[in-house]
Amino acid sequence: MNSRASDAPIAVELAKKQKAISVAEFFEKNRQMLGFDSLPRSLITCVKEAVDNSLDACEEASILPDIYIRIKKVDERILSVVVEDNGPGVQRDVLPRVFGKLLYGSRFHAIRQSRGQQGIGISAAVLYAQLTSGKPARITSRIDPKLPAYVYELKIDTETNEPKIISENYDDFFTSRGTRIELSLEATYVRGKQSVLEYLRNTAIVNPHARITLVDPYDEKFVFERACDVLPRQPVEIKPHPHGIELGTLVKMLQSTDSHRLSTFLSSSFAKIGGHTMESICREASLDPGMSPQELAKDIEAVKRLLAAFQKIKIMAPPKDCLSPITDDLLKKGITQNHRVDFISTVSRPVSVYRGNPFLVEAAIAYGGDIDSEGRAEIYRFANRVPLMYQQGACAITHAIERINWKNYGLEQPKGAKAPIGPLMIMVHVASTNVPFTSESKDAIADIPEIEDEIELAVREAARDLGRYLSEQKKALDARKKIKMFEAYTRELAIALEGLTGKDHTVIESKFMEVLSKKYSRFVGPEEAEENGPQ
Amino acid sequence: MNSRASDAPIAVELAKKQKAISVAEFFEKNRQMLGFDSLPRSLITCVKEAVDNSLDACEEASILPDIYIRIKKVDERILSVVVEDNGPGVQRDVLPRVFGKLLYGSRFHAIRQSRGQQGIGISAAVLYAQLTSGKPARITSRIDPKLPAYVYELKIDTETNEPKIISENYDDFFTSRGTRIELSLEATYVRGKQSVLEYLRNTAIVNPHARITLVDPYDEKFVFERACDVLPRQPVEIKPHPHGIELGTLVKMLQSTDSHRLSTFLSSSFAKIGGHTMESICREASLDPGMSPQELAKDIEAVKRLLAAFQKIKIMAPPKDCLSPITDDLLKKGITQNHRVDFISTVSRPVSVYRGNPFLVEAAIAYGGDIDSEGRAEIYRFANRVPLMYQQGACAITHAIERINWKNYGLEQPKGAKAPIGPLMIMVHVASTNVPFTSESKDAIADIPEIEDEIELAVREAARDLGRYLSEQKKALDARKKIKMFEAYTRELAIALEGLTGKDHTVIESKFMEVLSKKYSRFVGPEEAEENGPQ
Repeated sequence: MNSRASDAPIAVELAKKQKAISVAEFFEKNRQMLGFDSLPRSLITCVKEAVDNSLDACEEASILPDIYIRIKKVDERILSVVVEDNGPGVQRDVLPRVFGKLLYGSRFHAIRQSRGQQGIGISAAVLYAQLTSGKPARITSRIDPKLPAYVYELKIDTETNEPKIISENYDDFFTSRGTRIELSLEATYVRGKQSVLEYLRNTAIVNPHARITLVDPYDEKFVFERACDVLPRQPVEIKPHPHGIELGTLVKMLQSTDSHRLSTFLSSSFAKIGGHTMESICREASLDPGMSPQELAKDIEAVKRLLAAFQKIKIMAPPKDCLSPITDDLLKKGITQNHRVDFISTVSRPVSVYRGNPFLVEAAIAYGGDIDSEGRAEIYRFANRVPLMYQQGACAITHAIERINWKNYGLEQPKGAKAPIGPLMIMVHVASTNVPFTSESKDAIADIPEIEDEIELAVREAARDLGRYLSEQKKALDARKKIKMFEAYTRELAIALEGLTGKDHTVIESKFMEVLSKKYSRFVGPEEAEENGPQ
Repeated sequence: MNSRASDAPIAVELAKKQKAISVAEFFEKNRQMLGFDSLPRSLITCVKEAVDNSLDACEEASILPDIYIRIKKVDERILSVVVEDNGPGVQRDVLPRVFGKLLYGSRFHAIRQSRGQQGIGISAAVLYAQLTSGKPARITSRIDPKLPAYVYELKIDTETNEPKIISENYDDFFTSRGTRIELSLEATYVRGKQSVLEYLRNTAIVNPHARITLVDPYDEKFVFERACDVLPRQPVEIKPHPHGIELGTLVKMLQSTDSHRLSTFLSSSFAKIGGHTMESICREASLDPGMSPQELAKDIEAVKRLLAAFQKIKIMAPPKDCLSPITDDLLKKGITQNHRVDFISTVSRPVSVYRGNPFLVEAAIAYGGDIDSEGRAEIYRFANRVPLMYQQGACAITHAIERINWKNYGLEQPKGAKAPIGPLMIMVHVASTNVPFTSESKDAIADIPEIEDEIELAVREAARDLGRYLSEQKKALDARKKIKMFEAYTRELAIALEGLTGKDHTVIESKFMEVLSKKYSRFVGPEEAEENGPQ
């Protein structure tokens, strides 16, 4: 066991192998973490990253998005993908890094809802393309109609995680303003539930201000027209909310602030800390509002007291305007556009906070109509207006739905099944300044207790509405059965009573019907009510 | 919509916000990707990363691991975690970066099975600890009994992703050789299925050569004793296998090789390419074995032909010795140690390849005994001898199991349920030189088609054994019923026949029993057979 004890320590030998790994090398080896694990999914991920970028850019520049996607077959293995938008374009100085460097972006530090957050997505698509096709990405961008467009061909140098420019040119004929990316990659175009078309369809539903066009490898053209000409209100960038902020983050903020007094630091660095709240916090934490934040940072115990005061003192919820919910109307429209349903209920929860990040949950439940009634309930997941296509089993949305005992709401849930079965669609949207995804592929929301609880509350609320509807339906069904039964015997009973009372049986019969229609009026449809007697 | 067209292009403004993000900042914001999403899970992740590291280090140094874990409550929020091993220690020069820099490690570039692959895990625990407790990590290591141990207190500077050394000292009294890490972190100690204890129990099962000791916050001590004194065969580092290697990777290999001839490049850079195979490949690809690899790299079409030839020419499977399977015996033992079962079947698949990475799948199915018969089948997942505790719904193991129609194997599977229900345990181990996890938290294996297929094949094979057993059980049950029925009437029949034939009824009866025991011998237990007649 210890045969080497007399030699130089093994640790010396092992240390020689220690080496830094570039983030590009890391993701090249682990591209499944970025959503590139199978050929159909790789295509969806690639389109998704480009479209998300285009939508974010257009909205930041207050432009109604017009996005064109073309997918072509190059050979047996390789597809070419073009995504073109009418966005603001990408400035020349930063373009190579925006597309050719992982962890480079503009939205990472902003506390505001956006689709892209991490500065990884589109560069990951470039990385996957060069890995599988050997070809560089080709990017054309024009930031001003008066200037020519520039065209870059670039790769990512994985050892350094820096862009490697292959060629650089001008293009005078490019659209008046916008960006176009062209990639060649190993991928498969499929149809069905997990497909580019389905992703675009769902994207169009929750982004009705965008026009999206797809030309598929069979030259078939799909256009998702704009349903409205108004941009969604642009989410406002806010300061962090004190609730759930981390000790380490707080220390870092104290160290790096320009404020000289704790009081100024508190009211200028956080959302929802006004003068009064600031004073209460300092008193609760036994801290002098005049003390230096930098000094405070050195005393961990005092910072802990400050953190505890954040939790104890009542602080208003963060402003909703950093978020951009889908809204009831669109959730409803999203479902009814593709389905005829018997019942629909939507719920929008108030803004809540996890780890200092504001978030809100919206949910909709639809039932009946032409929804498939055989299998499990269908779950549609959205995060920051982006449909989530993969990893349903890993997502807090699914887990929250599975925590619910659906029998309580009148639904069927067989032993061992985690979700209800029946003609049911459940749609959940989580909007946040920082959606906590389980991985860089952004397919599933992590099981953050605060978020899971809010999802469960939203879905339960919608499920209660459904439960009431189903129980009404059941009552109505029972009542109708009773009415039918009663009707069947009314004539005979009336005739028998005519013999006993001497009254005309038609009078008795119409009296009976009157009683019936009073008692069961709410279960009788308008025509039936007319047929069956006076109102 | 276009109100800003006359100003400076918006792109110029947007470009100012573009910024590189350090990988430490990224994971600080997205710590759920590293397995730090809830308080109980954060504790498990922290212990797991430290224990995985200890096991890897001990095995690399051929030391039988002896790992001690102590978890203590510091205050309401904070736990302190100590993990100490008898491994080779970490050399002083590299220690700060091993524990204080993400993406720094020794196993990333080695093609060989190991628990750690990414150089992220333990630094992630340090990052989480400093973020939530504000405290640095304290690491003590001794690489030689003749030298003193050194003690570091360090944090990670998230803006640069470099270690920040807080203090540096010697400690003469530390154990003769090994490493100790102490972290303070926000976490919760829980018991039950997803707990530190359960993780250690499962780790001990598949690492019977390790002694693992836990002292929990209630001062209760759990010792998982060594079940064997022999280290598992150390996995051998190999070259990449040509099957499924990526075009981009191949180009990079061609560019950076020292070989001057394609022939030397092929046989020296890949596993399982000998002289004969090399010639066949070159012929198939219409390439001159004498050509320069660097020249070849410039001709993408020619590289594509080489890649196609790799797939077309028969190449031997990669050697098994880069992998370290759990083996049948241990899989069986793993299940029977904690359960009394009626039936168990184990399967070990041959080595296969995805994207050039060798992997193999082992599976075991146990049935009956004291396994809970009410709920869904329990799934136990392992990757490179590490139990996977979270994200079951996101894992290729689960997905492969859900693809199977379990009714075919005599099991109950209600409508809408994806897994069978009944007293069933399914255990799957995936061993690979590069396990494709869905995220850095290494909780779930991505849906790589090659891997999912192999898992399905392994589980199906075990399920077929179970199916045969269950059908035998059913037959035996039916036969026993028949025997019971027959026995009940034998005496009366014999007496009736005595009257007809004049033979003594006891003789007739024993004749009957003889026939019965012959026909149903395999369904009659030894005692019953003795009771019922001659052998």
